[in-house]
Amino acid sequence: MVILGIDPGYATIGFGVVVSDRSNYALRQYGVITTPPELAFPQRLQVIYEDMVQLMEQVTPDAMAIEELFWGHNVTTGIGVSHARGVILLAAAQKGLPIHEYTPMQIKQSVVGYGNATKHQVMDMTRRLLHMKAVARPDDAADAIAVALCHARSSTSLLRCIP
Amino acid sequence: MVILGIDPGYATIGFGVVVSDRSNYALRQYGVITTPPELAFPQRLQVIYEDMVQLMEQVTPDAMAIEELFWGHNVTTGIGVSHARGVILLAAAQKGLPIHEYTPMQIKQSVVGYGNATKHQVMDMTRRLLHMKAVARPDDAADAIAVALCHARSSTSLLRCIP
Repeated sequence: MVILGIDPGYATIGFGVVVSDRSNYALRQYGVITTPPELAFPQRLQVIYEDMVQLMEQVTPDAMAIEELFWGHNVTTGIGVSHARGVILLAAAQKGLPIHEYTPMQIKQSVVGYGNATKHQVMDMTRRLLHMKAVARPDDAADAIAVALCHARSSTSLLRCIP
Repeated sequence: MVILGIDPGYATIGFGVVVSDRSNYALRQYGVITTPPELAFPQRLQVIYEDMVQLMEQVTPDAMAIEELFWGHNVTTGIGVSHARGVILLAAAQKGLPIHEYTPMQIKQSVVGYGNATKHQVMDMTRRLLHMKAVARPDDAADAIAVALCHARSSTSLLRCIP
């Protein structure tokens, strides 16, 4: 199963592609989509949509895993990220992709084993499980890889339940 | 100038089409786009996008006027509306439409003449300025007509400044 993990944003969108085969996981590709701050906001949404469509055509994932919006103290940022996330979900829905959403706590639980793990622990365990030499940069890409890995491990757990 | 006014939402999106010719305004069309609650959220976004594209192809507006997000007490609703609003802005950007955003206060100021007007006053003044027999229903459509009218009057005000 090819899983496209997404860390949503409107300035920088992280992506990570994890291939899972039962309990074996491999990182195929990762990176970021960025939008120029000098563009008007609707045009930035257009860039995100077009780049997402192109990425999905290139990766041909079987599923998308995306972080649920973490509602921090900055409401203005939250509004912008929600707009961008809407466009990302639209692109995936148009491709008929199953979409799986995970909270930060679910990602920590799945990757590290407990929901109160630190960001550093998540990054380090992601690196080890995917046999990477170093933690992926920037953070947006590392977060996207973690949510893809979270889905790979969650799907595997479900499969294990079948006799 | 044909102005497409939008009251954003994810369950119900109001729209109103106002034609403005200097200081004359006329209501051409109004209504709502609704999404079935039994659909998954990404599929509701897809319905909104497709209906918005179809509406813009039918109306062929010169500009879109849309309410800035009113950030109420319900953060969950605000997140949902922001996702939908992202998809609406995307559809307009793809059509190359100029997009104008107005706060509730700007709408009140433009339609009634002062920013602290009540909702009832906005609805009633909208009705009178557009020679309507009754206030449009539902409220989402009435709000969309008001934001279109707000833009019509704001554009007219600017034209008045030219000697």
